[in-house]
Amino acid sequence: MIRCDTTTAWAALRGHFEAHGRVFDLREAFIRDTERTQGLTWSAPEIHADLSKNLIDTATLHFLHDLARECGVEQHRDAMFRGQPINVTEGRAVLHTALRAPRGAGPFSDEVHDVLDAMFAYAERVRDTAASGIRHVVNIGIGGSDLGPQMAVVALEPFVHPALTMHFVSNVDGHDLARVLRRLKAEETLFIVASKTFTTQETMANAMAARAWFLAQGMKEADIAKHFVATTTNIKAAAQFGIDTTFGFWDWVGGRYSLWSAIGLPIALAIGAAPFRSLLEGAHAMDRHFAEAPLSCNLPLQLGLLDVWYRNFHGFTSRSVAPYHQGLARFPAYLQQLEMESNGKRVDMAGEPVPFATSPVVWGEPGTNGQHAYFQMLHQGTDVVPVEFIAVRTPSHGLADQHTKLLANCLAQSQALMLGKSAEEAMKESAPTASATLDRAQLAQHRSFPGNRPSTTFVLEALTPRSLGALTALYEHRVFTSGALWGINSFDQWGVELGKALANQLLPRFASGDVQGLDGSTAALLKRLAS
Amino acid sequence: MIRCDTTTAWAALRGHFEAHGRVFDLREAFIRDTERTQGLTWSAPEIHADLSKNLIDTATLHFLHDLARECGVEQHRDAMFRGQPINVTEGRAVLHTALRAPRGAGPFSDEVHDVLDAMFAYAERVRDTAASGIRHVVNIGIGGSDLGPQMAVVALEPFVHPALTMHFVSNVDGHDLARVLRRLKAEETLFIVASKTFTTQETMANAMAARAWFLAQGMKEADIAKHFVATTTNIKAAAQFGIDTTFGFWDWVGGRYSLWSAIGLPIALAIGAAPFRSLLEGAHAMDRHFAEAPLSCNLPLQLGLLDVWYRNFHGFTSRSVAPYHQGLARFPAYLQQLEMESNGKRVDMAGEPVPFATSPVVWGEPGTNGQHAYFQMLHQGTDVVPVEFIAVRTPSHGLADQHTKLLANCLAQSQALMLGKSAEEAMKESAPTASATLDRAQLAQHRSFPGNRPSTTFVLEALTPRSLGALTALYEHRVFTSGALWGINSFDQWGVELGKALANQLLPRFASGDVQGLDGSTAALLKRLAS
Repeated sequence: MIRCDTTTAWAALRGHFEAHGRVFDLREAFIRDTERTQGLTWSAPEIHADLSKNLIDTATLHFLHDLARECGVEQHRDAMFRGQPINVTEGRAVLHTALRAPRGAGPFSDEVHDVLDAMFAYAERVRDTAASGIRHVVNIGIGGSDLGPQMAVVALEPFVHPALTMHFVSNVDGHDLARVLRRLKAEETLFIVASKTFTTQETMANAMAARAWFLAQGMKEADIAKHFVATTTNIKAAAQFGIDTTFGFWDWVGGRYSLWSAIGLPIALAIGAAPFRSLLEGAHAMDRHFAEAPLSCNLPLQLGLLDVWYRNFHGFTSRSVAPYHQGLARFPAYLQQLEMESNGKRVDMAGEPVPFATSPVVWGEPGTNGQHAYFQMLHQGTDVVPVEFIAVRTPSHGLADQHTKLLANCLAQSQALMLGKSAEEAMKESAPTASATLDRAQLAQHRSFPGNRPSTTFVLEALTPRSLGALTALYEHRVFTSGALWGINSFDQWGVELGKALANQLLPRFASGDVQGLDGSTAALLKRLAS
Repeated sequence: MIRCDTTTAWAALRGHFEAHGRVFDLREAFIRDTERTQGLTWSAPEIHADLSKNLIDTATLHFLHDLARECGVEQHRDAMFRGQPINVTEGRAVLHTALRAPRGAGPFSDEVHDVLDAMFAYAERVRDTAASGIRHVVNIGIGGSDLGPQMAVVALEPFVHPALTMHFVSNVDGHDLARVLRRLKAEETLFIVASKTFTTQETMANAMAARAWFLAQGMKEADIAKHFVATTTNIKAAAQFGIDTTFGFWDWVGGRYSLWSAIGLPIALAIGAAPFRSLLEGAHAMDRHFAEAPLSCNLPLQLGLLDVWYRNFHGFTSRSVAPYHQGLARFPAYLQQLEMESNGKRVDMAGEPVPFATSPVVWGEPGTNGQHAYFQMLHQGTDVVPVEFIAVRTPSHGLADQHTKLLANCLAQSQALMLGKSAEEAMKESAPTASATLDRAQLAQHRSFPGNRPSTTFVLEALTPRSLGALTALYEHRVFTSGALWGINSFDQWGVELGKALANQLLPRFASGDVQGLDGSTAALLKRLAS
């Protein structure tokens, strides 16, 4: 990998930005080039992507493609697929793509499919609810062991077994577990303990509390093996807990890339084996697209390049994701981990501090809800925040009229962001609620919109396991691309270690009350909080 | 109001920032001033606030207080409390504070308390579930008619009537309503239609669909009056719908400030009259603090000033809210509307474009979940994002051990953000997983943290209706303060109008397929989405 800022393409991009990028006007661009939409639209498996409402044109793409080539993004991608140890700080391969390759098609294929087959067989036994007696599944896991499975189960709700209710407990805060346990009967409940090492502080605290609750309900130690299952590589610790069913994975599966592995057990329990296989197939189709499509036709590559263009040239600091589908309510939270944990880094692979910005803040809520909340700021705030709309053509419900309204709103928002409304246009409209202190011209200023605010629109035919798999893999590869251009390691997460270490140092102080050596703020807060 | 950038205090602040702010080091500040924490800690009703891990010192405060005085923030605050029409573009007063004043204590007191009393009487009748037969309450509303009530009901879950399940439907996306209806029996369900005008597109679409579902379940038109209630000022339209129980409010109640009014009906149904009164009392206590505490002791004022300091001098573009309480899971979404809809403006009250940045992006998830997701970026990313921790001393569950772990993590995160870890310190630790390509010094760079990253910690004794009321009012007044300093109108939302108008123009095109006059992107998307 060549770091982006050391290339000649980077300097050329800088020149292009200064000459054309800074003053780029979307409205003019559409008038100037009537083929603009066709030139800036991509097709990938399950996903149609319209990038034409972004602050780019084909010249920008030309420079960005040069950058990708000079940085060697495609070679780096190939190294990932081949299983080279591109996670250099941990000396590991990065092979979540192997988790969704068909049997015989990728590295570790037999290991992967043996675990999948065992997991599916187990899931189908539990899903025979008349025989298993299970009605509630509680996934206890945090980070990647929570966000991915939860996002997918929420998204695929119409596919979920009607007799099973899925719960997700992640926070070490006991309110999280207590809220769920209140609704459960031990004899109807299956707990999944999801922790690669079986030592994650939050997960083990919740698992031990769930175990104690289970026994307090009159269940026996011998029942634990039937009502607790673990997704872990630490079979010994799980056995000590009383668990004899475990599903494992490998050191080349990062937490935030693990929903395709045994960590996806809650998804398999919720939707069953065949739909889970469709989820994997959708992701695999996107993997093939990413691996094989030429640079200029490759959707994840375009998106990663656009992210660099916005972050390092336009200087945009966040990106808002607006899924116009209530099922994708947890998708933004999932993406926060995927993108900000992967690319929230300040040194390159060699350990050199980078002189440019990396991961933006990623945030959002489903549309149309956001329109009645923070969209005010997107339209009339002082900062530009690129928005990513996700529209789904076919709903899974029968309220066709509402679906049309939803889609009309989705398109109208990207239109409004781009078109804006001048004060002159606002003046021509009938005056709004009278103001005692402002004249018509002043009120028109309040009712004007700058416009020229960029957005991307993704279209899915329907929200299915297959399309969700493709969509998720698309974001994975896009994050890979921007990370590769920035020359950072997108696959470690050293930034979580210091807080963990300090929490362990603080914990005994809550009992002892000893605040020696702490900064004044932490000492005072500890005194106040320790009871 | 004097706009901040036109004051002499602003110029003085600029000088202070260039001389001291830009290079401010938190770690040194704590060593230099052993009284730092005491000097930067505030007490307000129900809330203890430690601001000492922020990039300020008493000199900064001095300059900020000058700014507040010169801008006339206190006079503007007094004008709000008096009911002057400070929402200048709509010619309206801004009196959410009147909604929580005791009877006889504020403007419109009798009207406010008559509605509250009627609402509480109604709520208590429904809460007698044996008599009412109601087991499920579905609030249909969007924006302020959804986020506030939902946030509060989630936060106050331990106080919720055990026989009632609360649901919130907001999105025009039919998946939202369909997901909820699937679990309901019509004869056990009460629907609240929450829309000031009874015309909000999303809310009316969902209300009509709920009504149709209700009748399709074999219920009669005459049953509608018992199973539907409206929080609206449009009594006539509600009557046409079949609703005869309505609770109203006033034009001086903004949507995002309305949970204290009849829009809070779902809260009253969930927790009952007396706890709802405690919620109001907590907010009222914070109102008195904001109205009466001297500038230097006034917590909302300090927070609003800090926001301006970070946004306009340090240039931070977002703020992350990290409630270390699972009950506050929806608090960040609530704050997104409160802050970004209020202050996401680019013209001042007189309609002049402002030459500085206004509302930041506000975002977050509960801790400790965030630690396993995006905190990587907060610690080691290239941008500085101030974090706001909310810690609660006493839990409402019995898992004391988990609560101590939660609090230790909360304090450890603010410590880690501030202290960081140098590469030299990282070098001294035992080496992590071996790397074939990186030496020890390079790995230490990956494991180092810059530190000096600011945070605020709020401490609540317990999460109760009273403390939640105070906390919410604190944020309202803080947003008022920054908005006042910026000289913008925090109480209108013209930015939502253009999208609404364009959606209405696009809607018939989905049936006709006519794309004439549309930009190429919108035309192509419409063709693809219209079936």
